[in-house]
Amino acid sequence: TLRNPLYHWTHLELQRYFGITDLLSPHSADVIYHQANELLSNPEYHVQGLLQKMNVTVACTTDDPIDSLDYHKALAEQKCFTKVLPTWRPDKALDIDKGDSYTSYIHQLAVAADINISTYADLLAALRNRHDYFASVGCRLSDHGISEFYVADYTDLEIDRIFQKSRANMSITADEVLMFKSALLFELGVMNHEKGWVQQFHIGPLRNNNSRLFKVLGADTGFDSMGDFSYAQALSKFLNRLDADNKLTKTILYNINPKDNEMIATMTGNFQDGSIPGKIQFGSGWWFLDQKDGMERQLNALSSQGLLSRFVGMLTDSRSFLSFPRHEYFRRILCNLLGNDIEKGLLPNDLPLVGKMVEDICYNNAKDYFKF
Amino acid sequence: TLRNPLYHWTHLELQRYFGITDLLSPHSADVIYHQANELLSNPEYHVQGLLQKMNVTVACTTDDPIDSLDYHKALAEQKCFTKVLPTWRPDKALDIDKGDSYTSYIHQLAVAADINISTYADLLAALRNRHDYFASVGCRLSDHGISEFYVADYTDLEIDRIFQKSRANMSITADEVLMFKSALLFELGVMNHEKGWVQQFHIGPLRNNNSRLFKVLGADTGFDSMGDFSYAQALSKFLNRLDADNKLTKTILYNINPKDNEMIATMTGNFQDGSIPGKIQFGSGWWFLDQKDGMERQLNALSSQGLLSRFVGMLTDSRSFLSFPRHEYFRRILCNLLGNDIEKGLLPNDLPLVGKMVEDICYNNAKDYFKF
Amino acid sequence: TLRNPLYHWTHLELQRYFGITDLLSPHSADVIYHQANELLSNPEYHVQGLLQKMNVTVACTTDDPIDSLDYHKALAEQKCFTKVLPTWRPDKALDIDKGDSYTSYIHQLAVAADINISTYADLLAALRNRHDYFASVGCRLSDHGISEFYVADYTDLEIDRIFQKSRANMSITADEVLMFKSALLFELGVMNHEKGWVQQFHIGPLRNNNSRLFKVLGADTGFDSMGDFSYAQALSKFLNRLDADNKLTKTILYNINPKDNEMIATMTGNFQDGSIPGKIQFGSGWWFLDQKDGMERQLNALSSQGLLSRFVGMLTDSRSFLSFPRHEYFRRILCNLLGNDIEKGLLPNDLPLVGKMVEDICYNNAKDYFKF
Repeated sequence: TLRNPLYHWTHLELQRYFGITDLLSPHSADVIYHQANELLSNPEYHVQGLLQKMNVTVACTTDDPIDSLDYHKALAEQKCFTKVLPTWRPDKALDIDKGDSYTSYIHQLAVAADINISTYADLLAALRNRHDYFASVGCRLSDHGISEFYVADYTDLEIDRIFQKSRANMSITADEVLMFKSALLFELGVMNHEKGWVQQFHIGPLRNNNSRLFKVLGADTGFDSMGDFSYAQALSKFLNRLDADNKLTKTILYNINPKDNEMIATMTGNFQDGSIPGKIQFGSGWWFLDQKDGMERQLNALSSQGLLSRFVGMLTDSRSFLSFPRHEYFRRILCNLLGNDIEKGLLPNDLPLVGKMVEDICYNNAKDYFKF
Repeated sequence: TLRNPLYHWTHLELQRYFGITDLLSPHSADVIYHQANELLSNPEYHVQGLLQKMNVTVACTTDDPIDSLDYHKALAEQKCFTKVLPTWRPDKALDIDKGDSYTSYIHQLAVAADINISTYADLLAALRNRHDYFASVGCRLSDHGISEFYVADYTDLEIDRIFQKSRANMSITADEVLMFKSALLFELGVMNHEKGWVQQFHIGPLRNNNSRLFKVLGADTGFDSMGDFSYAQALSKFLNRLDADNKLTKTILYNINPKDNEMIATMTGNFQDGSIPGKIQFGSGWWFLDQKDGMERQLNALSSQGLLSRFVGMLTDSRSFLSFPRHEYFRRILCNLLGNDIEKGLLPNDLPLVGKMVEDICYNNAKDYFKF
Repeated sequence: TLRNPLYHWTHLELQRYFGITDLLSPHSADVIYHQANELLSNPEYHVQGLLQKMNVTVACTTDDPIDSLDYHKALAEQKCFTKVLPTWRPDKALDIDKGDSYTSYIHQLAVAADINISTYADLLAALRNRHDYFASVGCRLSDHGISEFYVADYTDLEIDRIFQKSRANMSITADEVLMFKSALLFELGVMNHEKGWVQQFHIGPLRNNNSRLFKVLGADTGFDSMGDFSYAQALSKFLNRLDADNKLTKTILYNINPKDNEMIATMTGNFQDGSIPGKIQFGSGWWFLDQKDGMERQLNALSSQGLLSRFVGMLTDSRSFLSFPRHEYFRRILCNLLGNDIEKGLLPNDLPLVGKMVEDICYNNAKDYFKF
């Protein structure tokens, strides 16, 4: 795995959590495995200990609107060192093209919200009910997985008719699916704005490319890759639709294909309106780009096209309790870029000035932006 | 603004025009503001003085076909240090989809050309009349802003019928708009070829993305961004249509999205025919790319895919009289690339050889190419 | 040509084959020309001598299914130092939209295979006959030139009907052409899998852009360039169609536009199944990318998204007997990247570890993968 981020991540995790500084190799593997496992049996290596060891103030999970959030409430009562907050991820509510599994999802949503869902208005009411509930448990962010932006034109009447067809198990055309998704994604944006949440869009993967192994292993098992759609125009239309009504909340855009870095970086500028510093953010290198080359290219594109100093910094969706050294990795990559610039005379050799920006990007900006 | 080009540009402008070498900061801002304003009241800081200070031989403005060019003529009579020439920018003549404002524009064009415009042939005659007039005032370049290339198939009869419908305020389909633009853009290319002008295409922005602030502030106020269209095939078809008739004049292609750098660099090679050195040019980093990273990537793509030595160099459309240090910025970036290559052993350590190329790119090539 | 790969290639060829270390310039050109020509008249500078001088173990040509391969057989009998093997390139068999020239090609194929071709089944039988023959002469690879991937849905009945129409000189719609190409490309993939060959896809050029010079000079004379199509979804569908039936053989994907590097690098991961190390490969910089910048970007994208250590390394389609120093060029670029990483502390300073990877990429991996 030389030159792959796994090589760096793995050794950084071994070193920071376990104090192991040997290179991982066929010769050292057994010893390292046993050393690490021995340490993992200590209480301080349980999940909350690992988070505290990394000085994690807040961690946000990703949750479906139907989730009870019982564990979030239990953790809040425990007064843990690390605050654990939910994130609203309503992707399944859009999947009107998924037949029975959508019907079943709407049923679960109705139960969770305790609202009978037969019209589109009912659907929105149920979602808003859960949105309120998420807010009451401390949610401050939403997250939306998007392959392309849905920006068909529609009327509420049409959307209601489409949703009724779905409730009646009648077939829905591709155009109707697109109209429905366009309408609902807009309404979800409106809800996010009402609460003053930060909404995040993760844009562009191609999922489940290998149908043979999908049958064996299911989704999210390593057979996703980068899409290469063009979506600048649709993204602009989507954001403008919300902004035209003054209902565009703080928004972070994460692209999966680095060819889109500069487009995204300039797109954020269209919707900065002076109301909130860095209101529209170009998100840090995500998924396949959550590595040195990906991070550097994101930082460079953001620097050239926007204000690096307003950046809210690193996010990882690694879902591993041992992956927090990736934040250190990000900080080192950021400092390395800036240090090289200073050495080349491209930035002033003024550590308080440049250092303040580093602290802001790595901590203060996020704290102010997310209102944790 | 650390790492944003504004940081470099601003300090370079303060230094080169005003001799101010302090860093701009909340503490220094007031003093610098007053220093600069004091100097700006001196006669040598009036526009012509600023141009002369930067040793500007020729500056080209961008002008609509209906423009009288009175100021260009007045400046020519003044025998200023800097020659100021018009550039032909006929974008509005293509906007047949703009309803009343197009009708009004055609009326103004008819007045300017003193030709009654009722047919497509009249329109071409009026444009050619103004094209001739621009040439008589010293114009050597045209400039065309293009979001995508228009390459629909059409007959002259169809185009005339479409134009007549427009004159009669009848509605025009999207297909007809595309056919009309395809025809007229071709004819404008033919006119440019007749005169031996250089034609420039600025390709790919998304404009007026923020409709809320458009209502308040209007166009060109900072709410444009990069498009991400695919246009290699259309660009090839457009250039080939002109070349097939041997009516493709010297042409510079500027792309707005750096993902297209290599495509554009290879596209120029399709239409080099040995008649003029570097006849088809890959233009220097434009708009969002008019900065260190953008310039370096353009220079690298051009180097790998074409002949850097034939490059006509830097253009800026900054429209600010204090922005000429951006040309110095370009020259330093170019020399920095070449110097690094020499240090790494990638180029011969032969200053006369490499230095001659620098002089050509920064001055001689443009002079020969544009025939100033 | 400073900074263009020609500058490096040319001097490397002069040095490695002819021992000429002077810079090529107007002053030195005549002397160098005569020196080189004098040496070229020596027997050791004949083709086989040049190949041996570069220590070439195997060279693969590109051949049409109708080719007799007589020269391959003759060379095999000569027991040359360099084994010369054919590569199966059946692009012309797909060109059902090419009218008379397709009819003529099918006729030649029928003769070569000694099979009467009147149905689609006959066509497949004739191609399989030639595929077998190629295998018998040592072929281990296929090569496919593709502008976009063909992945229309179809039935065998429809394809047979379309092929019959072609045989009867009836006109075929664009949709039918696409269906036919989709079907046949799939079947060619199945044949490649049956033999355990490596199949290569060269994706994305725009060809014959200059119709004026095409009339004078014909195809492949320097008027091709990079396309900018989006094709991730089609590529995924094509590979999955083969993989779903477990008929996806070892496959190398070469992209022509570097914007697609990361997409391709992640796409390979969708179809790695543990059966063969590095079964799906991201091919080395090809055509316009067969140069320092292109190679480095390919190596970096592969490193970040996959396993560099499994890479089968450099391929050149330069078709020049003096172009083998490009392989040295590749090796030096690879070592330069790795050496820089070691110096920056990004890789362990462990020459046996890193050096082993270099040897694998430059020789062993290819040997194992292609089964030469």
